[in-house]
Amino acid sequence: MKQRTNTPNDGNAVEQVAGNGLLHRRALLGRSVAVTGVFGTGVGLGVTGAAAESLVEPPWGLKIGDNSPAYQTPSKFAKNVVRTLANPDFEPRSSVARTPHHLLEGTTTPNGLHFTIVHTGIPDIDPGRHRLLIHGLVKRPLIFSLDALLRYPTTSRVSFVECGGNSAPLFSPKPIQDNVQALHGLASCAEWTGVKLSVLLEECGIDPGAKWFIAEGADAPHLMRSVPLAKGLDDAMVVFYQNGEPLMPGNGFPMRLLLPGWEGNLNVKYLRRIKLVTEPAMSYWESQVYTEPMPNGKAYQFTFFNEVKSFITRPSPGYELKQPGIYEISGIAFSGRGKITKVMVSADGGRSWAEAALQAPVMSKAFTRFRMPWRWDGGAALLQSRAWDDQGYSQPTRAEFIAARGELDAVPPVAAFRNHHFNAVTSWAVDPHGTVKHAYA
Amino acid sequence: MKQRTNTPNDGNAVEQVAGNGLLHRRALLGRSVAVTGVFGTGVGLGVTGAAAESLVEPPWGLKIGDNSPAYQTPSKFAKNVVRTLANPDFEPRSSVARTPHHLLEGTTTPNGLHFTIVHTGIPDIDPGRHRLLIHGLVKRPLIFSLDALLRYPTTSRVSFVECGGNSAPLFSPKPIQDNVQALHGLASCAEWTGVKLSVLLEECGIDPGAKWFIAEGADAPHLMRSVPLAKGLDDAMVVFYQNGEPLMPGNGFPMRLLLPGWEGNLNVKYLRRIKLVTEPAMSYWESQVYTEPMPNGKAYQFTFFNEVKSFITRPSPGYELKQPGIYEISGIAFSGRGKITKVMVSADGGRSWAEAALQAPVMSKAFTRFRMPWRWDGGAALLQSRAWDDQGYSQPTRAEFIAARGELDAVPPVAAFRNHHFNAVTSWAVDPHGTVKHAYA
Repeated sequence: MKQRTNTPNDGNAVEQVAGNGLLHRRALLGRSVAVTGVFGTGVGLGVTGAAAESLVEPPWGLKIGDNSPAYQTPSKFAKNVVRTLANPDFEPRSSVARTPHHLLEGTTTPNGLHFTIVHTGIPDIDPGRHRLLIHGLVKRPLIFSLDALLRYPTTSRVSFVECGGNSAPLFSPKPIQDNVQALHGLASCAEWTGVKLSVLLEECGIDPGAKWFIAEGADAPHLMRSVPLAKGLDDAMVVFYQNGEPLMPGNGFPMRLLLPGWEGNLNVKYLRRIKLVTEPAMSYWESQVYTEPMPNGKAYQFTFFNEVKSFITRPSPGYELKQPGIYEISGIAFSGRGKITKVMVSADGGRSWAEAALQAPVMSKAFTRFRMPWRWDGGAALLQSRAWDDQGYSQPTRAEFIAARGELDAVPPVAAFRNHHFNAVTSWAVDPHGTVKHAYA
Repeated sequence: MKQRTNTPNDGNAVEQVAGNGLLHRRALLGRSVAVTGVFGTGVGLGVTGAAAESLVEPPWGLKIGDNSPAYQTPSKFAKNVVRTLANPDFEPRSSVARTPHHLLEGTTTPNGLHFTIVHTGIPDIDPGRHRLLIHGLVKRPLIFSLDALLRYPTTSRVSFVECGGNSAPLFSPKPIQDNVQALHGLASCAEWTGVKLSVLLEECGIDPGAKWFIAEGADAPHLMRSVPLAKGLDDAMVVFYQNGEPLMPGNGFPMRLLLPGWEGNLNVKYLRRIKLVTEPAMSYWESQVYTEPMPNGKAYQFTFFNEVKSFITRPSPGYELKQPGIYEISGIAFSGRGKITKVMVSADGGRSWAEAALQAPVMSKAFTRFRMPWRWDGGAALLQSRAWDDQGYSQPTRAEFIAARGELDAVPPVAAFRNHHFNAVTSWAVDPHGTVKHAYA
């Protein structure tokens, strides 16, 4: 017997709000979908003989399953839902693992799939022996053990972390044909718990001359970054927990600096020293790596903020739309400056736009999931998203961004890209076969 | 050189707000801590020679670390942060894995540590072959594949799930000496993403005679529960993602029913059939297991709601307070009826209470983290928490609860407990040695 399964029917009862099939977002609001007749008009692919088919017992209903592990991991059928590794053979260079956004949903990045970048491998740190030193321009330099830090007031916050090099492939003059994991997989979002850095700095007593602090990691590269003291007294944290459990080894176990909304590399992992100083250290990462060449031959330095950005994760390259009809467009938006206030979606390459629904609660400096119902008519479509934040910033179009920042002639592998902090609009082209590809528009 | 590390000093500048050292919760508000002088009065355990000590390079700073895995897992130093298994040898009975709340923080339960209960092991379901059938009193019975379901409008929500048997050890006439994982580890909280059940029911067309639905799982036990249709049309969901990634095998991969705030067993995993009916099926789990004997010899049936509850996770049994001074009291509160509005904490066994700080954002039917600063004077203390929700419900004291529900004479193992749905106050006794034990008060 041929298996037929139900999909949303293609009733036209809901208002089209922008070109090429974008539907009013009230189609997302539960019962109103049916009431307004998007799916529930009786034309659906109803299954005759459904009850009979369901009596064919699949094998997993006929046998004893597996034992419960102490720490559960994904199904073998989800083995593709993993990070891609840029250095799988662990050659003597940085290791980069990217988050598979096209296979995830919601706003949380599960800990197994949070992106990581390490420069000399992942250190195996004994939390009982690890210490945090705060020194420099303070009244009293102090050393803290993890046990001691846990006696201070803790707080939790949801925050994304994004590498300054995320989305760098989009500097390429031609759209690189890869998926959203390869293009935007160096951003992830988690609930972090720890102690506000301000509490620890005040405990040490801040010398009035201090204007910056240098944060340094305990792993072999001793990665060092300079941070304005004002950020340290604002929302900076020393965090120990990631989505409830101790930090993952690749994300800084047993403690890292969290600077919500600021360039990932500044969020120093394996944090061992904070030194208050009068001026930045001009370390390798801030004088060489994360500066960006401009069309005029000069370079930006100290690009702290992850500027407002969005991208569509579903559908995205790798998806095949098998038949015309209703689909959901789903994606992620975030801003290092505050809350996302609006995401507009286009299905016709930016000629017309409709406002997407934002998943509540929308939190500052956190991933915000946006969704938009779409009726694909089987023709060519060009999907885009564009985000706005509550600090007055909007995501630039590609044309606006390239005018300001220029393109590079880099080619794959991705590591070859010399530019950073790309946040312009991403475009996915859907062809009449339903294939989704990366495009520029 | 003897290592000395810093801990919060014991300044008395912050107002004591309840007996036995509970401090005003403004001590949790970041910089105000220092401004008001809780920790920052200069009496802290400042470290002489701190800079010199820090020059001793630990081994992980001197060598190359490990490669990045495709799916990252915890540090070997966090090997105790795992679920405890009630049936580790996988004997032919239910397998129960409990969440280690004493070792977690924040509000998210990471997917590796979400509690699970399975009755015939964890099925190994191929999501490409799994189908959901909706039938019974509907206009059109329909079969849905996972791919088809993902074309419907999706939504995400944070929701706890709690087994009706969670906290059952507290029915014991004497306090069982075990930790919060053993006592309260059958509740967890995640961000779930899926399709509202109302959308699918309306797609099938609801017969006016339908008042209940029967949900059934695809694993060998074909666990079956009856649910009032009104819940199905309210906030019920068919979910596919847990904290962003596909559901864990122990939590229902590839799809489960989510009934936010309702007894865990009702949230049928491996969901394969929903049948609309006129009255409940009176299945094994609702006519035998999750009914609760009352002192008068009758029994409750269909206890849908997980009633308002809270417990302190840190400190809790297993913790040793090594010296008098300031500690943080941290715990979890939740209500299956709505939002937590208030958590009161006592350090003197309920003679006096102070209001804890609630971590924002507080979400309906989700874990809410509460925190309270506490100055332990080195004497005996009895720590309790008590929660209120926005639907007018409050967590009962133990005395109130036992008066209504009675005790049982059961003894360990936990599986021997015949009663369910315990939600009264939990007490932790701290003795002058700093040892924390389970107590009744």
